Amino acid sequence: MKVLVIGANGKTATHVVRLLAAGAHEPLAMIRDPGQRAKFDDLGVATVLADLEYPIDHAVKGCDAVIFAAGSGGQTGKDKTVLVDHIGAIRAIVSAQVNGAARFVMLSALNVDVNSQSRIAHYHRAKAHADNHLRETDLDYTIVCPGLLTDDAATGKVAVSAEVNGQGPTSRENLAAALVGCLDLENTVRKSFSLLEGDTPLDQALRSV
Amino acid sequence: MKVLVIGANGKTATHVVRLLAAGAHEPLAMIRDPGQRAKFDDLGVATVLADLEYPIDHAVKGCDAVIFAAGSGGQTGKDKTVLVDHIGAIRAIVSAQVNGAARFVMLSALNVDVNSQSRIAHYHRAKAHADNHLRETDLDYTIVCPGLLTDDAATGKVAVSAEVNGQGPTSRENLAAALVGCLDLENTVRKSFSLLEGDTPLDQALRSV
Repeated sequence: MKVLVIGANGKTATHVVRLLAAGAHEPLAMIRDPGQRAKFDDLGVATVLADLEYPIDHAVKGCDAVIFAAGSGGQTGKDKTVLVDHIGAIRAIVSAQVNGAARFVMLSALNVDVNSQSRIAHYHRAKAHADNHLRETDLDYTIVCPGLLTDDAATGKVAVSAEVNGQGPTSRENLAAALVGCLDLENTVRKSFSLLEGDTPLDQALRSV
Repeated sequence: MKVLVIGANGKTATHVVRLLAAGAHEPLAMIRDPGQRAKFDDLGVATVLADLEYPIDHAVKGCDAVIFAAGSGGQTGKDKTVLVDHIGAIRAIVSAQVNGAARFVMLSALNVDVNSQSRIAHYHRAKAHADNHLRETDLDYTIVCPGLLTDDAATGKVAVSAEVNGQGPTSRENLAAALVGCLDLENTVRKSFSLLEGDTPLDQALRSV
């Protein structure tokens, strides 16, 4: 499959692109800034310039799958959380529907809720709105909900659950492997699951969701 | 106040612009197509080119109020309903927040519901998501919910209710007068109300919500 990675320059997404490039699928790295291109050129990975605040159909067209790994991050205002994590994600979902990219893997988070009262409620609400929108489509979606992201090396051992609340660490490398792994596992379609560090080999865990 | 009218070329919104131009406020007509400009030039009304599928901050900047009267209409696909009526509206709300346009009058509809199962559920859901997003902001909003729009001349007589379900006709001229009238009525702030043809003089009705 040709797989568009949205937010490709992020830490987790860069791992995603590397794993895809080493595997059977063909990644297309969606980046916002031409200055981010060199990294992907070095990986031999094609890039497409697109911005979630603008139409992205030119990026999605011709792709079979989307991995949505974009995020406005903690350094921007709450307006960007709505523009990127909420309506930017919905825009990507609509573009996947219109352009026939039927497989959609969403990088979400634990504890997202449209009525969140958490310390980062604006983020948890935005993510929940996007996830809920995705669930109402007929796309072959998977929603992966990690905990606190770490830069620890992949252990290849995780814990998954259909219960997408809670807390704990998730290494970005394990997370990236899960996002990519879902593409080949039919059982993950139309599922949401939490992903934390744990004791179960990743592939076995993904097959259990 | 300087009032941005989003979707100005629509039937109701053109009435809105005319009423604003004849009154104490200064309209700015937001249009997508330069070909729509002549109509507003003839009215002596300033226009700004902007598209709800792209950032619109340049249009909102410097305005004190927004009247959102855009709609994807019944002739486009369901994707446009999401892109315009749902996330386009949320984009306008965010832009109003960021740019200090504190007064926001939303042209909504009766029977909107995020779980709508109506014949036009995709539309009712999209509008409900946008309205709910607006209610969660600190903007001075008013949400006006008309029934089936008609081209009948304004009677100046309406029926309003905080109950925003039901059905019945609403003339576009009465609706436009209500959208404009709200701008000067503090009691309509943070309210949602239905607007149907009725027996109560418009101003009296608006003061009762």
